[in-house]
Amino acid sequence: FQGINTFAHLDHHKCLLDPETPYDVALIGVPFDTAVSYRPGARFGPRAIRAASQRQTSLRGYNQRANFNPYQSWAKVIDCGDIPVTPVDNSVAFLQMTEAFKELISERKSVDSTSVPPRYVALGGDHSILLPHMRALHKIYGRLNVIHFDAHLDTWAPDKYPSFWHSDQSEINHGSMLWKAHEEGLTTRHNVHAGLRTKLSGLEDYEDDDTQHFLRIHADDIWLKGPEYVVKQILDTVPADTPTYISVDVDVLDPAFTSGTGTQEPGGWLPRELIHILRSIEGLTVVGGDVVEVSPAYDNAEITSTNGAQIAYELITSMVK
Amino acid sequence: FQGINTFAHLDHHKCLLDPETPYDVALIGVPFDTAVSYRPGARFGPRAIRAASQRQTSLRGYNQRANFNPYQSWAKVIDCGDIPVTPVDNSVAFLQMTEAFKELISERKSVDSTSVPPRYVALGGDHSILLPHMRALHKIYGRLNVIHFDAHLDTWAPDKYPSFWHSDQSEINHGSMLWKAHEEGLTTRHNVHAGLRTKLSGLEDYEDDDTQHFLRIHADDIWLKGPEYVVKQILDTVPADTPTYISVDVDVLDPAFTSGTGTQEPGGWLPRELIHILRSIEGLTVVGGDVVEVSPAYDNAEITSTNGAQIAYELITSMVK
Amino acid sequence: FQGINTFAHLDHHKCLLDPETPYDVALIGVPFDTAVSYRPGARFGPRAIRAASQRQTSLRGYNQRANFNPYQSWAKVIDCGDIPVTPVDNSVAFLQMTEAFKELISERKSVDSTSVPPRYVALGGDHSILLPHMRALHKIYGRLNVIHFDAHLDTWAPDKYPSFWHSDQSEINHGSMLWKAHEEGLTTRHNVHAGLRTKLSGLEDYEDDDTQHFLRIHADDIWLKGPEYVVKQILDTVPADTPTYISVDVDVLDPAFTSGTGTQEPGGWLPRELIHILRSIEGLTVVGGDVVEVSPAYDNAEITSTNGAQIAYELITSMVK
Amino acid sequence: FQGINTFAHLDHHKCLLDPETPYDVALIGVPFDTAVSYRPGARFGPRAIRAASQRQTSLRGYNQRANFNPYQSWAKVIDCGDIPVTPVDNSVAFLQMTEAFKELISERKSVDSTSVPPRYVALGGDHSILLPHMRALHKIYGRLNVIHFDAHLDTWAPDKYPSFWHSDQSEINHGSMLWKAHEEGLTTRHNVHAGLRTKLSGLEDYEDDDTQHFLRIHADDIWLKGPEYVVKQILDTVPADTPTYISVDVDVLDPAFTSGTGTQEPGGWLPRELIHILRSIEGLTVVGGDVVEVSPAYDNAEITSTNGAQIAYELITSMVK
Amino acid sequence: FQGINTFAHLDHHKCLLDPETPYDVALIGVPFDTAVSYRPGARFGPRAIRAASQRQTSLRGYNQRANFNPYQSWAKVIDCGDIPVTPVDNSVAFLQMTEAFKELISERKSVDSTSVPPRYVALGGDHSILLPHMRALHKIYGRLNVIHFDAHLDTWAPDKYPSFWHSDQSEINHGSMLWKAHEEGLTTRHNVHAGLRTKLSGLEDYEDDDTQHFLRIHADDIWLKGPEYVVKQILDTVPADTPTYISVDVDVLDPAFTSGTGTQEPGGWLPRELIHILRSIEGLTVVGGDVVEVSPAYDNAEITSTNGAQIAYELITSMVK
Amino acid sequence: FQGINTFAHLDHHKCLLDPETPYDVALIGVPFDTAVSYRPGARFGPRAIRAASQRQTSLRGYNQRANFNPYQSWAKVIDCGDIPVTPVDNSVAFLQMTEAFKELISERKSVDSTSVPPRYVALGGDHSILLPHMRALHKIYGRLNVIHFDAHLDTWAPDKYPSFWHSDQSEINHGSMLWKAHEEGLTTRHNVHAGLRTKLSGLEDYEDDDTQHFLRIHADDIWLKGPEYVVKQILDTVPADTPTYISVDVDVLDPAFTSGTGTQEPGGWLPRELIHILRSIEGLTVVGGDVVEVSPAYDNAEITSTNGAQIAYELITSMVK
Ligand SMILES: [Mn+2]
Ligand SMILES: [Mn+2]
Ligand SMILES: [Mn+2]
Ligand SMILES: [Mn+2]
Ligand SMILES: [Mn+2]
Ligand SMILES: [Mn+2]
Ligand SMILES: [Mn+2]
Ligand SMILES: [Mn+2]
Ligand SMILES: [Mn+2]
Ligand SMILES: [Mn+2]
Ligand SMILES: [Mn+2]
Ligand SMILES: [Mn+2]
Repeated sequence: FQGINTFAHLDHHKCLLDPETPYDVALIGVPFDTAVSYRPGARFGPRAIRAASQRQTSLRGYNQRANFNPYQSWAKVIDCGDIPVTPVDNSVAFLQMTEAFKELISERKSVDSTSVPPRYVALGGDHSILLPHMRALHKIYGRLNVIHFDAHLDTWAPDKYPSFWHSDQSEINHGSMLWKAHEEGLTTRHNVHAGLRTKLSGLEDYEDDDTQHFLRIHADDIWLKGPEYVVKQILDTVPADTPTYISVDVDVLDPAFTSGTGTQEPGGWLPRELIHILRSIEGLTVVGGDVVEVSPAYDNAEITSTNGAQIAYELITSMVK
Repeated sequence: FQGINTFAHLDHHKCLLDPETPYDVALIGVPFDTAVSYRPGARFGPRAIRAASQRQTSLRGYNQRANFNPYQSWAKVIDCGDIPVTPVDNSVAFLQMTEAFKELISERKSVDSTSVPPRYVALGGDHSILLPHMRALHKIYGRLNVIHFDAHLDTWAPDKYPSFWHSDQSEINHGSMLWKAHEEGLTTRHNVHAGLRTKLSGLEDYEDDDTQHFLRIHADDIWLKGPEYVVKQILDTVPADTPTYISVDVDVLDPAFTSGTGTQEPGGWLPRELIHILRSIEGLTVVGGDVVEVSPAYDNAEITSTNGAQIAYELITSMVK
Repeated sequence: FQGINTFAHLDHHKCLLDPETPYDVALIGVPFDTAVSYRPGARFGPRAIRAASQRQTSLRGYNQRANFNPYQSWAKVIDCGDIPVTPVDNSVAFLQMTEAFKELISERKSVDSTSVPPRYVALGGDHSILLPHMRALHKIYGRLNVIHFDAHLDTWAPDKYPSFWHSDQSEINHGSMLWKAHEEGLTTRHNVHAGLRTKLSGLEDYEDDDTQHFLRIHADDIWLKGPEYVVKQILDTVPADTPTYISVDVDVLDPAFTSGTGTQEPGGWLPRELIHILRSIEGLTVVGGDVVEVSPAYDNAEITSTNGAQIAYELITSMVK
Repeated sequence: FQGINTFAHLDHHKCLLDPETPYDVALIGVPFDTAVSYRPGARFGPRAIRAASQRQTSLRGYNQRANFNPYQSWAKVIDCGDIPVTPVDNSVAFLQMTEAFKELISERKSVDSTSVPPRYVALGGDHSILLPHMRALHKIYGRLNVIHFDAHLDTWAPDKYPSFWHSDQSEINHGSMLWKAHEEGLTTRHNVHAGLRTKLSGLEDYEDDDTQHFLRIHADDIWLKGPEYVVKQILDTVPADTPTYISVDVDVLDPAFTSGTGTQEPGGWLPRELIHILRSIEGLTVVGGDVVEVSPAYDNAEITSTNGAQIAYELITSMVK
Repeated sequence: FQGINTFAHLDHHKCLLDPETPYDVALIGVPFDTAVSYRPGARFGPRAIRAASQRQTSLRGYNQRANFNPYQSWAKVIDCGDIPVTPVDNSVAFLQMTEAFKELISERKSVDSTSVPPRYVALGGDHSILLPHMRALHKIYGRLNVIHFDAHLDTWAPDKYPSFWHSDQSEINHGSMLWKAHEEGLTTRHNVHAGLRTKLSGLEDYEDDDTQHFLRIHADDIWLKGPEYVVKQILDTVPADTPTYISVDVDVLDPAFTSGTGTQEPGGWLPRELIHILRSIEGLTVVGGDVVEVSPAYDNAEITSTNGAQIAYELITSMVK
Repeated sequence: FQGINTFAHLDHHKCLLDPETPYDVALIGVPFDTAVSYRPGARFGPRAIRAASQRQTSLRGYNQRANFNPYQSWAKVIDCGDIPVTPVDNSVAFLQMTEAFKELISERKSVDSTSVPPRYVALGGDHSILLPHMRALHKIYGRLNVIHFDAHLDTWAPDKYPSFWHSDQSEINHGSMLWKAHEEGLTTRHNVHAGLRTKLSGLEDYEDDDTQHFLRIHADDIWLKGPEYVVKQILDTVPADTPTYISVDVDVLDPAFTSGTGTQEPGGWLPRELIHILRSIEGLTVVGGDVVEVSPAYDNAEITSTNGAQIAYELITSMVK
């Protein structure tokens, strides 16, 4: 409870202003929430996740499930602060986010020069922040596999809902950014949804989703078929040696664990299940990731943001180990 | 988040005032909570469930677990608003509820004239609202099987607790209405409790319960014996082709998922378990049902009422499919 | 606590879909909150204000401070529901709101044909919804006096903050819409701010504000100089017989009374002071008004939304009396 | 924060079971809330007030505004626990409460034999508990003056609202118990309402109220006319030497100070105003009193119940000094 | 909701002041929380657990999982209130607690003279209260087996963290008290941690823990290996016929079930799992126990404290059965 | 809502580690709360105040009541982060705090070399942190006048409460630190309490307080006698040209404005009154100050911490202007 709140008490650098600072893995906040369909508030997600991460320290950072302390290793892990982003014009906001991610990822060296460029765990913000992140990663790695933990598909094509009020800007929102990423050629044919339980427009949603090359793992699979079934499905779909992006919408968890999110869906995963899956797929080539949709105004006693901080920790562990 | 809050944005009709409106399935709120033994507040349950149902729409209403969209089908599904009921005199209140249910159920036609009369999912309100609902259903269908999801027995006989202050009115409360329904001959010999974990007066509670022909499925059975065990127990007990009433006291779920209820019992079901069971018994002949004991003053970020809205949706799916 | 939640149990008409319904005064919800600078969430304001208004009824609606029952009078008062508005594209959203208000105000008759056209109390939503409302009113009444209850100026000119990321869309937000209204020629030279206590960029903010012809009444005036001073300042500034718009940002009240708002400013008015001022200026020609910035995720036990519902009630009283 | 929660750590006696214990002033909880028109929950009021009173102790109990420590004086002050009362049958409940109060008041001696019989501060519970309390006091003292701090009149005659569903039981509720007390001849012609700001049915409400001999002090009087005006109005109305009952509905305070109550009315008194008035009228002959309508499920951080505990402390001070 | 809040409405005796009262099993509150590393507030744990236990009564106290009613048996079960303990000097506080426990345990007779001395379930308070409890038990029973349900090890040796600011007092805190108990020779070689998932300093934490003779059962074991695996591990480690202390840190449960605690760790047990384990090991010789780390300021609708009250009930059942 | 949370987005320097950084005024957090008598939690006060200060920026930092922008002036204002302080040993903690303050104040230069040494606004933490702050200031300035805004005296002499369990450590707590400051000769004869309304042990508390040379301004004076009376009392007591320390316990405000504090006292000041007084005494020679007792676990929607941040801002304004 002491000190200025950076993620896990990590050193803070204003990475966007100071392109010379080298590091290997960074947290980057993206306080953006104006592409949501229901409850806003995820703009306060980065602040909440940082506050909830204060019990993480490098001294007490050994991940017992991974047998590894990501904060004491070859890698320099820092907190880059937030990307400044306007809350009143999404077109501008996506430009801001895209430029920021490009700058962060493309134009600097990591500490370990033999390593890949610096990698980021983005702290949302709503789920649409995945798009600028993947645009930047695509510049370096080309197409990416996406492992998408979410109650929802987020591959909804906006043209499926023609409207008198259509606009380009409204095409990108927190339910369509995976569709957009596919449209822009950022994704491979080896993608996975895990934790799905959303209501649908109809089975045509799945047809669209198939076109975007996603395997769908339903929320119930983890308890009706078992965690190893889920792990196997993921590992059979995503090649271990190609660049992979892991995106965690905290609503993949049941609302009891993530009341602080925008679009609750009853019947979700338990935190232990998500952590177990994340650890079980740590062998993949994770080049970027995010934890999104933490909306603290609806949280209770930091439960959601503590889960968010834990997920970020697991992703960092996977990146560094 | 737009528009006057009816359940799932369904059309609203004041069904009690307008007996001519035809429909097949209706939501009906019963804002009554003065028959409770501990925390009151379920009078605000219908409002809370409606608010929490706003992310349900007919366009995005396809139930993927059921392969069916109950809001786009042969059936007209509407929201009938609330039954007006006094909060200061339970005897009068039960008259009001009983008259209202009788009028709603007995005296009108459904849209589909080949179908059964209109059916209702009642939104409680405390659990005692089951009694007037079943009284009305009995007029049409005769005795009903009851599938009762609850942490508690609710078959407690009031004469078991003789008191200086006994009164007829206090005989009917949210722990005795199943006993009363049995007394009045409304129930069959094929009834089930699922999710039980209440403390008891002693084993004589089970003897009374046996007399009322209930099979008891304890809360732990679903994880120690498995969900298919629970499904089989229910389907072995309740004949598929006789009229069945499904009553869901949200306290069947663990308090983490239903803090907004009157009488928490640790160790309950997970929402995914309840949804799975409801879907697995959809083949039964469901002629009425309820979701009760949502008490929003104790809820956190609409978790309980969102679960309540989901349960109503699952019941409607079963009725319409 | 009974029945579908319309404002004060008033009749609900979908006024935008049904232009034939006559009425004199209507509530209209504007669930828009993507023009805010800090906490979002006011999109749930209309729902919350309606829920908090449930203890208002026409039978128990006599306003003792006004000696008048606005729900039992010559005027037909109804609830028109909400204006549908996109949450992901503000340019489109302002088109939607502007078209809706124009349609509501310009193209229909009131019940009392000798009266002015129907008038509206808009339930926000963030403060920027004032702009489309005033654009529509201007079509009928020409320039309007504005009485603006707020902790903040909301006359900030966007060109005062040049930015690399400037966009037309971001010009209109909940701190600049009064400036925009002035730019568009919607306001007169007789306007008042009341309750001000915001931090400033500097005294040049006041110069800009002077240009827009606002008298500034600071928050402390009401207790250091007295309520009659405030009343006199308003009545000396605003001509009683010219069309006037009253806009109430609930943050004019101290945060203890309106925790459920976006931008708290310590040191605000008490609800009794605001009600007293509103009643004391009831002789003005109020042709439109709003209650904005109710953001229920931050509210406690409906205090903010109950104050919002009371303010709407006072405005309706002034319109009808 | 230590020890079993009695009011202010006072000794606890089960006074109803043990009629021999002598004392002079007692707290008595009345956990009854099924006569309310809106939010229930005041059954948990006594528990909440006791918890919030834990910072009161006899060692640190000197009331500086009164220059007196009511817990260290000639009087024995104790906590009598709660009256057991059914939550499912109001007719029975009123019998229970009436019998209990009669027994407590009529049939025992105080410690100081020269003194009046033991006196009680009742901790509500909803406001209707005033009725059994006054019935018992009437047995000893005859008619009582009532000083009624409340936003509401609570003198509403039930026959003013004829209903198909009329019942004797529903005649007594938390808005009519003063009318009933007048009907039963319990009150004098010297009664006061203070803090009124309720909406009315119409001016006929005041006519009824006049018939019941109440002076009405409106909420705004305390700040528009000053506290001494209010004090003078009360002291001019209530004879100092005749038995007086002081009843404090915590909704007399503004909802910011009493969010934990059933029927919020914006524009109420500040706690310091209420305390000042209570101290200024301490010379009256207070033979009984209550603090009612504390409903902790809606409270925030014990603000309401702390105010409730303070009010009880002020009443005890007045009784003992 | 009626009556002064003792645990489960049990009789209250001030056991420390009155050494003559005989009893067999007692609840004893320890409102101490100044040995915590993160969130304080557990000083209000005893009050909260008592309030949450109000739905437990001896009449409705039959534990169906145990086939036993611990409140109606050979044993006299009472509530001894709280140990007074200073919140501003931990050295003094540990003296106070140690003296109190010694006095409670060593110097009095149980009701059943053939039985062991009175036994206690301590209601925390932070986890460090285990130390004085075990010191007192050791006087009678000698070394004790410890079954420690916790997310954390709590065997951390303070000398592992040398500091400029070292002090004897800071050696004992809620993460080191098991180390201290081992240092003082209070524990046997047959101890178990269950539910572990804390981050570590490194594997050397386990080496220290081994030295203190603890078997470690990780949180995931209960769902990945099954509950019977956990039961067998415990029963294979702890001899059934030697004195055993069961300590339950409520953070062994997932934060969704225990938001009201000091140091949340995602991925914990479900309440039904903990209850099942407690019941499955009821054959052990339980001579003392505790429920600790309930911090109600962070709780939601009493979920955590209701779980705490249930755990106490299970421990009492095991002691009495 | 963007960026790492420093106070008002000011630059952050780890001042204790880097004694070379020059500055004029600094915020310094003191996350200490183990000297409290009731609710703990103020250790999270600095974090909460910083979060609530995010709407303060230097660009929009003009204090209109003071006609001055303290963030754009001759003075360099920064955020020094927190003093590390143990939560489990108060003796050590006071050493840590005292050393830290001495180092911060005594051993460095301000930016403006003509000015006094750097000055600090301490963000509590509980009120006892005043003591180390004043100890350090005394090294430079000698005896200080204290203006103490508080509901409580905080001059209680520990020897007034002899106890079997007395200890030196417990002498310093959040109710006695002013007594200790007087004992140590840190204070002058010109001190003021403002906002008092605590219950007392008796009038002897005032005698002790007189000995410590405090003028007492009671909470009611500000509304019964007026704000100018209060200002005059302060200015008549405290010499304008001698070093003065301003300490603000947020419980001087009524609990509705500061639910997030440890020891609520009904009947407090309104925020506008406190701000007005602070501005009216800005001519004094303020060499240090604090805002203490913000305990966010009990706060609602950041009301308390927003008031805390405003108070800090007013103190900084007074220091810099
Ligand atoms: Mn999602
Ligand atoms: Mn998503
Ligand atoms: Mn139940
Ligand atoms: Mn039930
Ligand atoms: Mn504003
Ligand atoms: Mn505004
Ligand atoms: Mn009232
Ligand atoms: Mn009342
Ligand atoms: Mn633990
Ligand atoms: Mn522990
Ligand atoms: Mn204080
Ligand atoms: Mn203080």
